[in-house]
Amino acid sequence: MREPLQTGATIGILGGGQLGRMLAVAASRLGLRAHIYEPAADAPAAQVAHRCTTADYSDEAALLAFADSVDVITYEFENIPAEALDILGRHRPIHPGRLALATSQDRLTEKEFLTGLGLMTAPYQAVDSASDLHSASASIGPAAILKTRRFGYDGKGQIRLSPESDLDAVWAEMADAPSVLEGFVAFSSEISVIAARNASGQISSFDPGTNEHRGGILHKTTVPARISAALRTDAVLIASRILNALEYVGVMGVELFVTDAGLIVNEIAPRVHNSGHWTQQACSVDQFEQHIRAIAGWPLGDGKRHLDVEMVNLIGDDIRQLPSLAADGNVAIHMYGKAEARTGRKMGHYNRIVR
Amino acid sequence: MREPLQTGATIGILGGGQLGRMLAVAASRLGLRAHIYEPAADAPAAQVAHRCTTADYSDEAALLAFADSVDVITYEFENIPAEALDILGRHRPIHPGRLALATSQDRLTEKEFLTGLGLMTAPYQAVDSASDLHSASASIGPAAILKTRRFGYDGKGQIRLSPESDLDAVWAEMADAPSVLEGFVAFSSEISVIAARNASGQISSFDPGTNEHRGGILHKTTVPARISAALRTDAVLIASRILNALEYVGVMGVELFVTDAGLIVNEIAPRVHNSGHWTQQACSVDQFEQHIRAIAGWPLGDGKRHLDVEMVNLIGDDIRQLPSLAADGNVAIHMYGKAEARTGRKMGHYNRIVR
Repeated sequence: MREPLQTGATIGILGGGQLGRMLAVAASRLGLRAHIYEPAADAPAAQVAHRCTTADYSDEAALLAFADSVDVITYEFENIPAEALDILGRHRPIHPGRLALATSQDRLTEKEFLTGLGLMTAPYQAVDSASDLHSASASIGPAAILKTRRFGYDGKGQIRLSPESDLDAVWAEMADAPSVLEGFVAFSSEISVIAARNASGQISSFDPGTNEHRGGILHKTTVPARISAALRTDAVLIASRILNALEYVGVMGVELFVTDAGLIVNEIAPRVHNSGHWTQQACSVDQFEQHIRAIAGWPLGDGKRHLDVEMVNLIGDDIRQLPSLAADGNVAIHMYGKAEARTGRKMGHYNRIVR
Repeated sequence: MREPLQTGATIGILGGGQLGRMLAVAASRLGLRAHIYEPAADAPAAQVAHRCTTADYSDEAALLAFADSVDVITYEFENIPAEALDILGRHRPIHPGRLALATSQDRLTEKEFLTGLGLMTAPYQAVDSASDLHSASASIGPAAILKTRRFGYDGKGQIRLSPESDLDAVWAEMADAPSVLEGFVAFSSEISVIAARNASGQISSFDPGTNEHRGGILHKTTVPARISAALRTDAVLIASRILNALEYVGVMGVELFVTDAGLIVNEIAPRVHNSGHWTQQACSVDQFEQHIRAIAGWPLGDGKRHLDVEMVNLIGDDIRQLPSLAADGNVAIHMYGKAEARTGRKMGHYNRIVR
């Protein structure tokens, strides 16, 4: 185990969105600097980072210079091109590692990994053609969602089937993208667990929260989750098994469905997670600092929660609520510095302390 | 009253130390950018700010370019040269304003302002010569401290007298700096109140905390302060009177001595204050965001405290405690990104949640 990174060391962060932004701020609390790598100009994270490289993931010279300038590399999203990771990984450690990325970048690989651990998932079947879709639908039933295996998030790349669906038309809409048909799960709620593991194998989990979505995008996370103590423990144990199996280093978000049969793993995200933003107000060490601690070789925070809290995303026009939110004494506002409030765009979030 | 600053607007901050650093991070939470102005290279605040100008306060061109690039100007320390403020103030609003600065930059002016409000201070007398010192000492008594009127902080520029003091030698040590002799106050403890006022006259105060010093430098602040409820209210009222009288915009630190006769004002600082760092863990809006809200025309946070907490400074070699602090689940660490741990240098602080 290498020494923990000290003041003046630099965390390289791939991706300059709001997660990279909050990771950069967390790094600063530990005396560390952040260097952002982001193709788009004027990235939210660049506003709070020590340095920012604006370059494409195919720019080998920029990638090498970036790697040279940092001590460890992490990322705010899981869909980084493999070629870029190959180049970077030859020069600096990347956390979380390739196994976690490869597993979570592909819904089919992920499901097979999870079921291989003996964990429950939704019923699923690979779909690579219209005829695959017909047979998968026949076996799983009409209550199902067709999802691309790769590069899907916030409800994009997903088509919900119904008994009336024209399967050939649905497949045409997927444009031959390798996909998975997932059976619908009758769940009473969705929860998520934000857990971390460091290189020495220490694991720390935050309390599970209950998630509510609107239009396929996370709307609200409430902690503590409205589930039994037994299920809370189950959720944490499931997350720990996943982290251990992947020899994971960093923070992971694990989404779970609460069903009569127990907890079913919906998906895993090898990064800080929108449903963990509540930790900013309720814990000594939030998920962003926890991630930085893990990848920087620091001991993990213990995840203890001091307050009950709800996190609500501010999406598009939701920012019109800012004046009233700013006047609410229990609300902590976290804006992302994005200029344009487009529909569906995450502009910020707030954490409301409940007690 | 002008409109509140919106996403994309820029806060100009004079001074790139730890206070500027934490102000920059707070600005980012509201979607605002920070531009630091700092003569020294590699300033702590520059590591987390959108921009940094490295230039002297006598560099008129740099000051003008800085003013042009920001929407409002504030500062992390009160000893900014008046000429720089003259130049900047012709182009952009500066908060807190000149009256507050002029008052707090000079211990004599400050004492006269405070006693003019009917508030209690330590007995004091202006000292501009050895003979002034002899007469002041005769009137105030030997239990006294000679302080320079300007540019003193953290115990610098102060000489404690005793019955054995050679007053001529003491005055020689002050090198003719205009000074004030302050009588020693028999106090049971020192507390401070961090309070804010915005341009529409709204005032909000955080709970008073009890301060402990070591070697003239703040060591620890504990909240709630160990004082009666009546004194707590008195402290907040005193701070409010001061802010109102100065038509103050921003956060102020007010240090008070607790004595048998009531609260005596020790000094005021027209900026965020070391004894207010505990608000980072215990309040929805901390003192840094409160300051940004005030100067950006936002409504103030209400200062409610959700937790009991103690803040401890990490000075010089104290950073050797980092490994054990990092492993303490109730501790939140805030490092300043300073490379060299010199004796007496504030390297960071931590907030320990007590309950």
